[in-house]
Amino acid sequence: MATIKDVAREAGVSVATVSRVVNQSPKASQSSITAVKAAMQKLGYRPNAAARALVSQSTNIIGVLVNDASDPFFGTLVKAVDKVAHENGKQVLIGHGYHHAEHERKAIELLINSRCDALVIHAKALSDNELIDYAREVKSMVLINRYIPEIADRCISLDNFKGAYLATEYLIKNGHKNIACISSSHPIEDTEQRISGYKAALHDYGISLPASYIEQAEPNTEGGEVATTNLLLKSLDITAIVAYNDNMAAGAIFVLEENGLTLPDQISIIGFDDALISRYVSPKLTTVLYPIQLMGEQAAQLALNLAKGTSSDSQPLRFSPTLVRRDSVKKHD
Amino acid sequence: MATIKDVAREAGVSVATVSRVVNQSPKASQSSITAVKAAMQKLGYRPNAAARALVSQSTNIIGVLVNDASDPFFGTLVKAVDKVAHENGKQVLIGHGYHHAEHERKAIELLINSRCDALVIHAKALSDNELIDYAREVKSMVLINRYIPEIADRCISLDNFKGAYLATEYLIKNGHKNIACISSSHPIEDTEQRISGYKAALHDYGISLPASYIEQAEPNTEGGEVATTNLLLKSLDITAIVAYNDNMAAGAIFVLEENGLTLPDQISIIGFDDALISRYVSPKLTTVLYPIQLMGEQAAQLALNLAKGTSSDSQPLRFSPTLVRRDSVKKHD
Repeated sequence: MATIKDVAREAGVSVATVSRVVNQSPKASQSSITAVKAAMQKLGYRPNAAARALVSQSTNIIGVLVNDASDPFFGTLVKAVDKVAHENGKQVLIGHGYHHAEHERKAIELLINSRCDALVIHAKALSDNELIDYAREVKSMVLINRYIPEIADRCISLDNFKGAYLATEYLIKNGHKNIACISSSHPIEDTEQRISGYKAALHDYGISLPASYIEQAEPNTEGGEVATTNLLLKSLDITAIVAYNDNMAAGAIFVLEENGLTLPDQISIIGFDDALISRYVSPKLTTVLYPIQLMGEQAAQLALNLAKGTSSDSQPLRFSPTLVRRDSVKKHD
Repeated sequence: MATIKDVAREAGVSVATVSRVVNQSPKASQSSITAVKAAMQKLGYRPNAAARALVSQSTNIIGVLVNDASDPFFGTLVKAVDKVAHENGKQVLIGHGYHHAEHERKAIELLINSRCDALVIHAKALSDNELIDYAREVKSMVLINRYIPEIADRCISLDNFKGAYLATEYLIKNGHKNIACISSSHPIEDTEQRISGYKAALHDYGISLPASYIEQAEPNTEGGEVATTNLLLKSLDITAIVAYNDNMAAGAIFVLEENGLTLPDQISIIGFDDALISRYVSPKLTTVLYPIQLMGEQAAQLALNLAKGTSSDSQPLRFSPTLVRRDSVKKHD
């Protein structure tokens, strides 16, 4: 990483001048500010690195970017990173991205400026190129639930396509043909991959359904209620639903029961994640296991290894989802 | 807060010597290390304040201590603090306390050493005195879900006793007398206050029950299963259960149904928190509202106001729980 001396040399000014600019001293002239800022940008120098170098110690912080910590999926991710952090005498700094590019960018910038030792990033709205740039700048940054070929060794991900395919295929093998899909309205790759998996399974088994069988809404319980209500309004002859995640499935069950439909006798449903809620809804939810705890721990460990420059264990970076059979899918005659 | 000059004066050495000690320079003599460390401790000086003063800027971090971020209750608290942080251009650093004194202490120390601008602390295992000491050291520290009279203006809390009393009274008013209580096994004030509220309601309505009607286990869904299984083993003539929280209630519902009991016809249950899960279990859970989102936002705002030295709005610091009526309580004849 560039030092304050490198910046001074590049800008053609003294170290004291760089320090004045960094500390926003009123004594810094406009021309030196311009020169120093240009040099800082060129060299990728971050002001706080000065303080860090000065006190000669690690910040002992692992930064983690999540979509929304109040969603148990991301709460589990935070806890997983915290577990590894704790084992290594470190703490966790979190940022929220809310699946919006501007939020994600700002949060990552703040995490970097906070001089985190390592970063575990769940970013879905930023482009591949922008994340590749960040990954090149920050050697200890690991992406979770995202796969970018150029930085594949920094990506811990799940095969979302396969998960949705498995879920849909399981319904088909249980005799279902009229299978609706309630998916996320967030324009992220997970949405696309899971809808593709659903469509591919239907296609492979020779089932053709119109686009009206797919409803998209927020990927939470309320979104599940909205999407299911919209499906019911269309009077389609549905016998089963593939849900984007367990929260949407829980919302769907709520609406289906309020509308007098018996599960799984009249309608079957399958979730995604194997979240806590899947075991406590009625009927207990058949779902697809997303090993987020395990993946979060591995991402944190990989990030710390990268920070230390030690080689990583040959752990899997790409995880395969598996089916968890419970009581929400019934054989359709 | 003490400056590096204060430390130098106290230790009878130069500022450069203090700096050498702080930065663990090999040039620092053993006698100066001893003198400087004693002065630092006496004055409550934290080395990182030097770096902070040097770069003349706030860290823009709000520290938050939670029990366990993967529990949606604490995930919601983190999100609430993050909301206020975001509105103020700040980020959130989290620590996990896991209701253990040593974890809580270590996490608070790390948050302080990370130079957080403000602290929102959910500490249940540390003593009042230890927290009072921290509060005196860190002017911008606010406690949440804890009430300590000496620092009442820094405590945002809920009346746990009243919540449990309300829940128990609601069952009594619905004709229940044989009311069991499944509570937390964590030795924290919440447990004690909620059990006291349960007992007080029984007492006020002239109901006397043996201690065997109370079962304690981990305050999560699995703990709810364990506690309920233990209750059933005792063959008590129970018609209703007061649960420590919604997660334990969800676990209880799971076990009761597996044992062929119909809810709420054969057994009624009431939760605590109004967590997301309460709306998606079957029957939908009657519970006690814990406004953790609102309380978390107020705690963060209060902590930021304290950090800035501005006076706080006259917001309530002590919240009252209220009943949320759903479908898990039935009139008992």
